Amino acid sequence: MEESRELSKEISSAVIARLPRYFRYLGELKDGGVTRISSRELSDLMHVTASQIRQDLNQFGGFGQQGYGYNVGYLYHEIGKILGLDISHHMILVGAGNLGQALVNYMDFQRRGFLFKGVFDKNPALHGKKIRDIEVQPMEQMERFVKENDIDIAVLTIPKASAVEVAGILSECGIRGIWNFAHCDLNVPSNIQVENVHLSESLMKLSFRLTNDSME
Amino acid sequence: MEESRELSKEISSAVIARLPRYFRYLGELKDGGVTRISSRELSDLMHVTASQIRQDLNQFGGFGQQGYGYNVGYLYHEIGKILGLDISHHMILVGAGNLGQALVNYMDFQRRGFLFKGVFDKNPALHGKKIRDIEVQPMEQMERFVKENDIDIAVLTIPKASAVEVAGILSECGIRGIWNFAHCDLNVPSNIQVENVHLSESLMKLSFRLTNDSME
Repeated sequence: MEESRELSKEISSAVIARLPRYFRYLGELKDGGVTRISSRELSDLMHVTASQIRQDLNQFGGFGQQGYGYNVGYLYHEIGKILGLDISHHMILVGAGNLGQALVNYMDFQRRGFLFKGVFDKNPALHGKKIRDIEVQPMEQMERFVKENDIDIAVLTIPKASAVEVAGILSECGIRGIWNFAHCDLNVPSNIQVENVHLSESLMKLSFRLTNDSME
Repeated sequence: MEESRELSKEISSAVIARLPRYFRYLGELKDGGVTRISSRELSDLMHVTASQIRQDLNQFGGFGQQGYGYNVGYLYHEIGKILGLDISHHMILVGAGNLGQALVNYMDFQRRGFLFKGVFDKNPALHGKKIRDIEVQPMEQMERFVKENDIDIAVLTIPKASAVEVAGILSECGIRGIWNFAHCDLNVPSNIQVENVHLSESLMKLSFRLTNDSME
Protein backbone atom coordinates (compact mmCIF):
# COMPACT_ATOMS: atom_id res chain seq x y z
CA MET A 1 0.00 0.00 0.00
CA GLU A 2 2.81 2.38 0.90
CA GLU A 3 4.49 1.78 -2.40
CA SER A 4 1.50 2.40 -4.62
CA ARG A 5 0.66 5.45 -2.55
CA GLU A 6 3.89 7.23 -3.24
CA LEU A 7 3.94 6.29 -6.86
CA SER A 8 0.39 7.24 -7.60
CA LYS A 9 0.95 10.82 -6.59
CA GLU A 10 3.01 11.43 -9.65
CA ILE A 11 0.74 9.69 -12.09
CA SER A 12 -0.57 11.80 -14.92
CA SER A 13 -4.27 12.08 -15.56
CA ALA A 14 -3.69 10.46 -18.96
CA VAL A 15 -2.40 7.31 -17.30
CA ILE A 16 -5.24 7.33 -14.77
CA ALA A 17 -7.69 7.60 -17.63
CA ARG A 18 -6.16 4.53 -19.25
CA LEU A 19 -6.12 2.34 -16.13
CA PRO A 20 -9.83 1.35 -16.22
CA ARG A 21 -9.36 0.14 -19.78
CA TYR A 22 -6.43 -2.08 -18.76
CA PHE A 23 -8.60 -3.33 -15.93
CA ARG A 24 -11.44 -4.15 -18.34
CA TYR A 25 -9.21 -6.06 -20.78
CA LEU A 26 -7.43 -7.96 -18.01
CA GLY A 27 -10.81 -8.87 -16.49
CA GLU A 28 -11.97 -10.27 -19.81
CA LEU A 29 -8.73 -12.21 -20.25
CA LYS A 30 -9.01 -13.57 -16.73
CA ASP A 31 -12.63 -14.62 -17.32
CA GLY A 32 -11.49 -16.27 -20.52
CA GLY A 33 -8.97 -18.39 -18.63
CA VAL A 34 -5.84 -16.57 -19.79
CA THR A 35 -3.23 -16.58 -17.03
CA ARG A 36 -0.37 -14.67 -18.58
CA ILE A 37 0.14 -12.27 -21.45
CA SER A 38 3.05 -10.42 -23.02
CA SER A 39 2.94 -6.67 -23.52
CA ARG A 40 2.95 -7.35 -27.27
CA GLU A 41 -0.14 -9.56 -27.08
CA LEU A 42 -1.88 -7.04 -24.86
CA SER A 43 -0.82 -4.36 -27.33
CA ASP A 44 -2.44 -6.19 -30.26
CA LEU A 45 -5.61 -6.70 -28.28
CA MET A 46 -5.94 -3.14 -27.01
CA HIS A 47 -4.58 -1.28 -30.04
CA VAL A 48 -2.05 0.53 -27.87
CA THR A 49 1.69 0.28 -28.46
CA ALA A 50 3.57 -2.26 -26.34
CA SER A 51 5.93 0.46 -25.16
CA GLN A 52 2.99 2.56 -23.97
CA ILE A 53 1.74 -0.42 -21.97
CA ARG A 54 5.14 -1.05 -20.40
CA GLN A 55 5.55 2.64 -19.65
CA ASP A 56 2.10 2.94 -18.07
CA LEU A 57 2.45 -0.14 -15.91
CA ASN A 58 5.99 0.73 -14.90
CA GLN A 59 4.61 3.79 -13.16
CA PHE A 60 3.20 1.45 -10.56
CA GLY A 61 6.44 -0.35 -10.04
CA GLY A 62 6.15 -2.61 -13.08
CA PHE A 63 4.29 -5.86 -12.95
CA GLY A 64 5.93 -7.68 -15.80
CA GLN A 65 8.91 -9.98 -15.96
CA GLN A 66 11.25 -10.07 -18.91
CA GLY A 67 10.48 -13.14 -20.99
CA TYR A 68 7.41 -14.05 -18.99
CA GLY A 69 5.05 -11.14 -19.54
CA TYR A 70 2.32 -10.22 -17.14
CA ASN A 71 0.48 -12.46 -14.74
CA VAL A 72 -3.10 -11.62 -15.73
CA GLY A 73 -4.81 -12.37 -12.41
CA TYR A 74 -2.21 -10.55 -10.37
CA LEU A 75 -2.14 -7.49 -12.62
CA TYR A 76 -5.96 -7.36 -12.67
CA HIS A 77 -6.02 -7.52 -8.89
CA GLU A 78 -3.31 -4.88 -8.46
CA ILE A 79 -4.88 -2.41 -10.90
CA GLY A 80 -8.19 -2.95 -9.14
CA LYS A 81 -6.52 -1.98 -5.85
CA ILE A 82 -4.92 1.08 -7.44
CA LEU A 83 -8.37 2.10 -8.72
CA GLY A 84 -9.79 1.69 -5.22
CA LEU A 85 -12.05 -1.18 -6.24
CA ASP A 86 -11.08 -3.29 -3.24
CA ILE A 87 -13.08 -0.88 -1.07
CA SER A 88 -16.86 -0.41 -1.07
CA HIS A 89 -18.16 3.05 -1.88
CA HIS A 90 -21.50 4.23 -0.53
CA MET A 91 -23.33 6.43 -2.97
CA ILE A 92 -26.49 8.49 -3.20
CA LEU A 93 -28.31 9.49 -6.35
CA VAL A 94 -29.66 13.01 -6.58
CA GLY A 95 -32.23 13.25 -9.37
CA ALA A 96 -34.43 10.22 -10.02
CA GLY A 97 -35.18 10.80 -13.71
CA ASN A 98 -34.52 8.28 -16.49
CA LEU A 99 -30.77 8.72 -16.40
CA GLY A 100 -30.61 8.42 -12.62
CA GLN A 101 -32.78 5.33 -12.66
CA ALA A 102 -30.58 3.78 -15.33
CA LEU A 103 -27.52 4.30 -13.14
CA VAL A 104 -29.13 2.82 -10.02
CA ASN A 105 -30.31 -0.18 -12.01
CA TYR A 106 -26.93 -0.83 -13.59
CA MET A 107 -25.69 -3.93 -11.82
CA ASP A 108 -22.11 -3.53 -12.91
CA PHE A 109 -21.51 -0.68 -10.47
CA GLN A 110 -22.64 -2.82 -7.56
CA ARG A 111 -20.40 -5.65 -8.67
CA ARG A 112 -17.46 -3.21 -8.50
CA GLY A 113 -18.34 -2.10 -4.98
CA PHE A 114 -20.24 1.09 -5.83
CA LEU A 115 -23.37 0.75 -3.76
CA PHE A 116 -26.36 3.08 -4.03
CA LYS A 117 -27.74 3.63 -0.54
CA GLY A 118 -30.19 6.47 -1.08
CA VAL A 119 -32.06 8.29 -3.84
CA PHE A 120 -33.31 11.87 -3.61
CA ASP A 121 -35.52 14.00 -5.81
CA LYS A 122 -37.36 17.27 -5.34
CA ASN A 123 -40.43 16.00 -7.20
CA PRO A 124 -43.04 14.92 -4.56
CA ALA A 125 -44.68 12.61 -7.11
CA LEU A 126 -41.60 10.40 -6.93
CA HIS A 127 -41.28 10.26 -3.14
CA GLY A 128 -41.83 6.78 -1.82
CA LYS A 129 -41.43 5.26 -5.27
CA LYS A 130 -38.84 2.51 -5.34
CA ILE A 131 -35.91 2.31 -7.72
CA ARG A 132 -34.52 -1.16 -7.43
CA ASP A 133 -35.14 -1.50 -3.69
CA ILE A 134 -34.38 2.08 -2.72
CA GLU A 135 -37.14 4.52 -1.87
CA VAL A 136 -36.95 8.01 -3.35
CA GLN A 137 -36.74 10.59 -0.58
CA PRO A 138 -37.29 14.36 -0.51
CA MET A 139 -34.23 16.57 -0.90
CA GLU A 140 -34.64 17.79 2.67
CA GLN A 141 -33.59 14.35 3.93
CA MET A 142 -30.35 14.31 1.96
CA GLU A 143 -28.02 16.10 4.34
CA ARG A 144 -28.89 13.97 7.35
CA PHE A 145 -28.79 10.80 5.27
CA VAL A 146 -25.30 11.52 3.97
CA LYS A 147 -23.99 12.10 7.48
CA GLU A 148 -25.67 9.08 9.03
CA ASN A 149 -24.89 6.56 6.31
CA ASP A 150 -21.24 7.13 5.64
CA ILE A 151 -21.90 8.24 2.05
CA ASP A 152 -18.77 9.11 0.15
CA ILE A 153 -20.01 9.66 -3.41
CA ALA A 154 -22.98 11.67 -4.65
CA VAL A 155 -24.19 11.13 -8.20
CA LEU A 156 -25.86 14.24 -9.61
CA THR A 157 -28.38 13.70 -12.39
CA ILE A 158 -30.19 17.00 -11.97
CA PRO A 159 -30.43 20.07 -14.22
CA LYS A 160 -27.56 22.51 -14.02
CA ALA A 161 -29.82 25.16 -12.47
CA SER A 162 -29.89 23.23 -9.19
CA ALA A 163 -26.60 21.34 -9.41
CA VAL A 164 -24.43 24.12 -8.05
CA GLU A 165 -26.65 24.60 -4.98
CA VAL A 166 -26.89 20.86 -4.29
CA ALA A 167 -23.11 20.47 -4.67
CA GLY A 168 -22.70 23.25 -2.10
CA ILE A 169 -24.92 21.45 0.40
CA LEU A 170 -23.12 18.16 -0.21
CA SER A 171 -19.73 19.81 0.27
CA GLU A 172 -20.77 20.85 3.73
CA CYS A 173 -22.01 17.50 4.89
CA GLY A 174 -18.87 15.48 4.26
CA ILE A 175 -19.24 14.04 0.80
CA ARG A 176 -15.85 13.16 -0.71
CA GLY A 177 -16.65 12.73 -4.38
CA ILE A 178 -19.23 13.94 -6.85
CA TRP A 179 -20.03 12.16 -10.09
CA ASN A 180 -21.56 15.04 -11.97
CA PHE A 181 -23.88 14.57 -14.93
CA ALA A 182 -25.24 18.14 -14.76
CA HIS A 183 -24.01 20.20 -17.67
CA CYS A 184 -21.97 22.67 -15.64
CA ASP A 185 -18.72 22.88 -13.73
CA LEU A 186 -19.00 22.59 -9.97
CA ASN A 187 -16.78 24.83 -7.92
CA VAL A 188 -16.44 22.81 -4.75
CA PRO A 189 -13.62 22.82 -2.18
CA SER A 190 -10.47 21.14 -3.45
CA ASN A 191 -10.78 18.25 -1.00
CA ILE A 192 -13.85 17.09 -2.92
CA GLN A 193 -13.16 15.15 -6.10
CA VAL A 194 -15.44 15.83 -9.05
CA GLU A 195 -15.70 13.62 -12.10
CA ASN A 196 -17.84 15.09 -14.85
CA VAL A 197 -19.84 13.22 -17.45
CA HIS A 198 -20.93 15.86 -19.92
CA LEU A 199 -22.95 13.95 -22.46
CA SER A 200 -23.62 16.93 -24.74
CA GLU A 201 -19.91 17.58 -24.98
CA SER A 202 -19.19 13.99 -25.85
CA LEU A 203 -21.75 14.19 -28.66
CA MET A 204 -20.19 17.44 -29.90
CA LYS A 205 -16.79 15.75 -30.12
CA LEU A 206 -18.36 13.09 -32.33
CA SER A 207 -20.01 15.80 -34.40
CA PHE A 208 -16.66 17.56 -34.79
CA ARG A 209 -15.08 14.41 -36.18
CA LEU A 210 -17.99 13.74 -38.54
CA THR A 211 -17.89 17.30 -39.83
CA ASN A 212 -14.20 17.22 -40.54
CA ASP A 213 -14.37 13.73 -41.97
CA SER A 214 -17.02 14.75 -44.50
CA MET A 215 -14.83 17.56 -45.76
CA GLU A 216 -12.01 15.28 -46.74
CA MET B 1 -15.21 26.70 -44.57
CA GLU B 2 -12.03 26.05 -46.49
CA GLU B 3 -9.98 27.76 -43.88
CA SER B 4 -11.33 25.92 -40.86
CA ARG B 5 -11.12 22.70 -42.80
CA GLU B 6 -7.42 22.88 -43.34
CA LEU B 7 -6.70 24.05 -39.85
CA SER B 8 -8.82 21.50 -38.09
CA LYS B 9 -6.87 18.62 -39.56
CA GLU B 10 -3.95 19.42 -37.36
CA ILE B 11 -5.92 19.97 -34.20
CA SER B 12 -5.00 17.73 -31.31
CA SER B 13 -7.64 15.65 -29.57
CA ALA B 14 -6.95 17.62 -26.38
CA VAL B 15 -8.04 20.84 -28.09
CA ILE B 16 -11.07 19.15 -29.61
CA ALA B 17 -12.03 17.92 -26.16
CA ARG B 18 -11.88 21.48 -24.83
CA LEU B 19 -13.93 23.09 -27.61
CA PRO B 20 -17.37 22.05 -26.32
CA ARG B 21 -16.50 23.64 -22.99
CA TYR B 22 -15.60 26.95 -24.66
CA PHE B 23 -18.84 26.66 -26.57
CA ARG B 24 -20.80 26.15 -23.35
CA TYR B 25 -19.24 29.12 -21.55
CA LEU B 26 -19.62 31.40 -24.56
CA GLY B 27 -23.27 30.37 -24.88
CA GLU B 28 -23.89 31.24 -21.25
CA LEU B 29 -22.13 34.60 -21.65
CA LYS B 30 -24.14 35.33 -24.78
CA ASP B 31 -27.39 34.42 -23.03
CA GLY B 32 -26.34 36.71 -20.19
CA GLY B 33 -25.98 39.63 -22.59
CA VAL B 34 -22.17 39.76 -22.60
CA THR B 35 -20.94 40.86 -26.03
CA ARG B 36 -17.18 40.84 -25.60
CA ILE B 37 -14.67 39.25 -23.23
CA SER B 38 -10.91 39.30 -22.80
CA SER B 39 -8.93 36.09 -22.61
CA ARG B 40 -8.13 37.01 -19.01
CA GLU B 41 -11.80 37.29 -18.03
CA LEU B 42 -12.58 34.05 -19.83
CA SER B 43 -9.62 32.51 -18.04
CA ASP B 44 -10.96 33.50 -14.61
CA LEU B 45 -14.37 32.15 -15.47
CA MET B 46 -13.20 28.83 -16.87
CA HIS B 47 -10.23 28.21 -14.59
CA VAL B 48 -7.94 27.74 -17.59
CA THR B 49 -4.89 29.93 -18.17
CA ALA B 50 -5.33 32.87 -20.52
CA SER B 51 -2.40 31.65 -22.60
CA GLN B 52 -4.06 28.25 -23.00
CA ILE B 53 -7.20 29.96 -24.27
CA ARG B 54 -5.26 32.10 -26.74
CA GLN B 55 -3.29 29.10 -27.90
CA ASP B 56 -6.39 26.94 -28.35
CA LEU B 57 -8.35 29.56 -30.25
CA ASN B 58 -5.37 30.54 -32.37
CA GLN B 59 -5.45 27.07 -33.86
CA PHE B 60 -8.58 28.11 -35.69
CA GLY B 61 -7.04 31.27 -37.01
CA GLY B 62 -7.49 33.33 -33.85
CA PHE B 63 -10.69 35.15 -33.11
CA GLY B 64 -9.41 37.81 -30.75
CA GLN B 65 -8.15 41.32 -31.33
CA GLN B 66 -5.38 42.86 -29.26
CA GLY B 67 -6.93 45.23 -26.75
CA TYR B 68 -10.47 44.28 -27.63
CA GLY B 69 -10.72 40.65 -26.64
CA TYR B 70 -13.20 38.25 -28.15
CA ASN B 71 -16.54 39.04 -29.69
CA VAL B 72 -18.70 36.56 -27.72
CA GLY B 73 -21.48 36.08 -30.27
CA TYR B 74 -19.09 35.66 -33.17
CA LEU B 75 -16.80 33.26 -31.33
CA TYR B 76 -19.78 31.20 -30.11
CA HIS B 77 -21.07 30.97 -33.65
CA GLU B 78 -17.68 30.04 -35.11
CA ILE B 79 -16.94 27.36 -32.55
CA GLY B 80 -20.42 25.99 -33.16
CA LYS B 81 -19.59 25.71 -36.86
CA ILE B 82 -16.25 24.03 -36.10
CA LEU B 83 -18.12 21.52 -33.94
CA GLY B 84 -20.55 20.85 -36.78
CA LEU B 85 -23.51 22.25 -34.87
CA ASP B 86 -24.74 24.28 -37.81
CA ILE B 87 -25.75 21.01 -39.49
CA SER B 88 -28.56 18.69 -38.36
CA HIS B 89 -27.61 15.13 -37.51
CA HIS B 90 -30.10 12.31 -37.86
CA MET B 91 -29.71 9.70 -35.17
CA ILE B 92 -31.13 6.35 -34.17
CA LEU B 93 -31.12 4.84 -30.71
CA VAL B 94 -30.36 1.14 -30.38
CA GLY B 95 -31.44 -0.12 -26.96
CA ALA B 96 -34.56 1.40 -25.42
CA GLY B 97 -33.73 0.86 -21.75
CA ASN B 98 -33.64 3.58 -19.10
CA LEU B 99 -30.42 5.10 -20.36
CA GLY B 100 -31.59 5.13 -23.97
CA GLN B 101 -34.92 6.67 -22.99
CA ALA B 102 -33.11 9.35 -21.01
CA LEU B 103 -31.05 10.26 -24.06
CA VAL B 104 -34.05 10.44 -26.40
CA ASN B 105 -35.92 12.60 -23.90
CA TYR B 106 -33.05 15.01 -23.35
CA MET B 107 -34.18 18.16 -25.18
CA ASP B 108 -30.75 19.72 -25.27
CA PHE B 109 -29.56 17.36 -28.00
CA GLN B 110 -32.46 18.38 -30.24
CA ARG B 111 -31.74 22.03 -29.63
CA ARG B 112 -28.20 21.44 -30.92
CA GLY B 113 -29.40 19.73 -34.07
CA PHE B 114 -29.05 16.10 -32.93
CA LEU B 115 -32.39 14.61 -33.92
CA PHE B 116 -33.53 11.14 -32.95
CA LYS B 117 -35.42 9.66 -35.89
CA GLY B 118 -35.78 6.04 -34.87
CA VAL B 119 -35.53 3.74 -31.84
CA PHE B 120 -34.78 0.02 -31.99
CA ASP B 121 -34.80 -2.73 -29.42
CA LYS B 122 -34.76 -6.50 -29.57
CA ASN B 123 -37.32 -6.83 -26.78
CA PRO B 124 -40.75 -7.48 -28.36
CA ALA B 125 -42.49 -6.10 -25.26
CA LEU B 126 -41.18 -2.65 -26.19
CA HIS B 127 -42.15 -2.71 -29.86
CA GLY B 128 -44.78 -0.10 -30.64
CA LYS B 129 -44.17 1.70 -27.36
CA LYS B 130 -43.46 5.39 -27.85
CA ILE B 131 -40.47 7.26 -26.46
CA ARG B 132 -41.21 10.90 -26.85
CA ASP B 133 -43.03 10.55 -30.18
CA ILE B 134 -40.89 7.78 -31.64
CA GLU B 135 -42.13 4.22 -31.83
CA VAL B 136 -39.76 1.45 -30.77
CA GLN B 137 -39.13 -0.89 -33.72
CA PRO B 138 -37.67 -4.39 -33.93
CA MET B 139 -33.96 -4.71 -34.69
CA GLU B 140 -34.78 -6.27 -38.05
CA GLN B 141 -36.05 -2.89 -39.28
CA MET B 142 -32.86 -1.04 -38.39
CA GLU B 143 -30.80 -1.58 -41.52
CA ARG B 144 -33.51 -0.45 -43.92
CA PHE B 145 -34.42 2.50 -41.69
CA VAL B 146 -30.83 3.76 -41.59
CA LYS B 147 -30.56 3.61 -45.37
CA GLU B 148 -33.91 5.23 -46.07
CA ASN B 149 -33.75 8.01 -43.51
CA ASP B 150 -30.31 9.44 -44.04
CA ILE B 151 -29.19 8.45 -40.54
CA ASP B 152 -25.64 9.47 -39.76
CA ILE B 153 -25.28 8.67 -36.05
CA ALA B 154 -26.26 5.53 -34.12
CA VAL B 155 -26.42 5.68 -30.35
CA LEU B 156 -25.74 2.29 -28.78
CA THR B 157 -27.19 1.70 -25.32
CA ILE B 158 -27.09 -2.07 -25.45
CA PRO B 159 -25.05 -4.64 -23.53
CA LYS B 160 -21.57 -5.29 -24.79
CA ALA B 161 -22.48 -8.83 -25.81
CA SER B 162 -24.55 -7.51 -28.72
CA ALA B 163 -22.79 -4.18 -29.36
CA VAL B 164 -20.04 -5.58 -31.56
CA GLU B 165 -22.52 -7.38 -33.82
CA VAL B 166 -24.83 -4.35 -34.08
CA ALA B 167 -21.88 -2.07 -34.84
CA GLY B 168 -20.90 -4.44 -37.63
CA ILE B 169 -24.39 -4.26 -39.19
CA LEU B 170 -24.42 -0.47 -38.87
CA SER B 171 -21.00 -0.20 -40.51
CA GLU B 172 -22.37 -1.93 -43.55
CA CYS B 173 -25.42 0.22 -43.99
CA GLY B 174 -23.76 3.60 -44.20
CA ILE B 175 -23.71 4.94 -40.66
CA ARG B 176 -20.97 7.55 -40.19
CA GLY B 177 -20.72 7.85 -36.42
CA ILE B 178 -21.40 5.67 -33.39
CA TRP B 179 -21.97 7.09 -29.92
CA ASN B 180 -21.15 3.99 -27.94
CA PHE B 181 -22.36 3.47 -24.37
CA ALA B 182 -21.68 -0.28 -24.42
CA HIS B 183 -18.75 -1.20 -22.23
CA CYS B 184 -16.48 -2.42 -24.99
CA ASP B 185 -14.34 -1.12 -27.82
CA LEU B 186 -15.86 -1.35 -31.26
CA ASN B 187 -13.55 -2.30 -34.09
CA VAL B 188 -15.28 -0.67 -37.01
CA PRO B 189 -13.80 0.53 -40.32
CA SER B 190 -11.74 3.69 -39.93
CA ASN B 191 -14.21 5.80 -41.90
CA ILE B 192 -16.69 5.39 -39.04
CA GLN B 193 -16.14 7.67 -36.07
CA VAL B 194 -16.71 6.18 -32.63
CA GLU B 195 -17.13 8.21 -29.47
CA ASN B 196 -17.25 6.09 -26.34
CA VAL B 197 -19.03 6.91 -23.10
CA HIS B 198 -17.80 4.31 -20.65
CA LEU B 199 -19.63 5.13 -17.45
CA SER B 200 -17.95 2.44 -15.35
CA GLU B 201 -14.56 3.79 -16.31
CA SER B 202 -15.54 7.31 -15.39
CA LEU B 203 -16.63 6.08 -11.97
CA MET B 204 -13.34 4.20 -11.56
CA LYS B 205 -11.40 7.40 -12.24
CA LEU B 206 -13.35 9.06 -9.44
CA SER B 207 -12.66 6.08 -7.20
CA PHE B 208 -8.94 6.31 -8.00
CA ARG B 209 -8.84 9.92 -6.90
CA LEU B 210 -10.81 9.22 -3.73
CA THR B 211 -8.53 6.34 -2.85
CA ASN B 212 -5.38 8.34 -3.27
CA ASP B 213 -6.84 11.38 -1.60
CA SER B 214 -7.66 9.38 1.54
CA MET B 215 -4.08 8.18 1.81
CA GLU B 216 -2.66 11.65 2.10
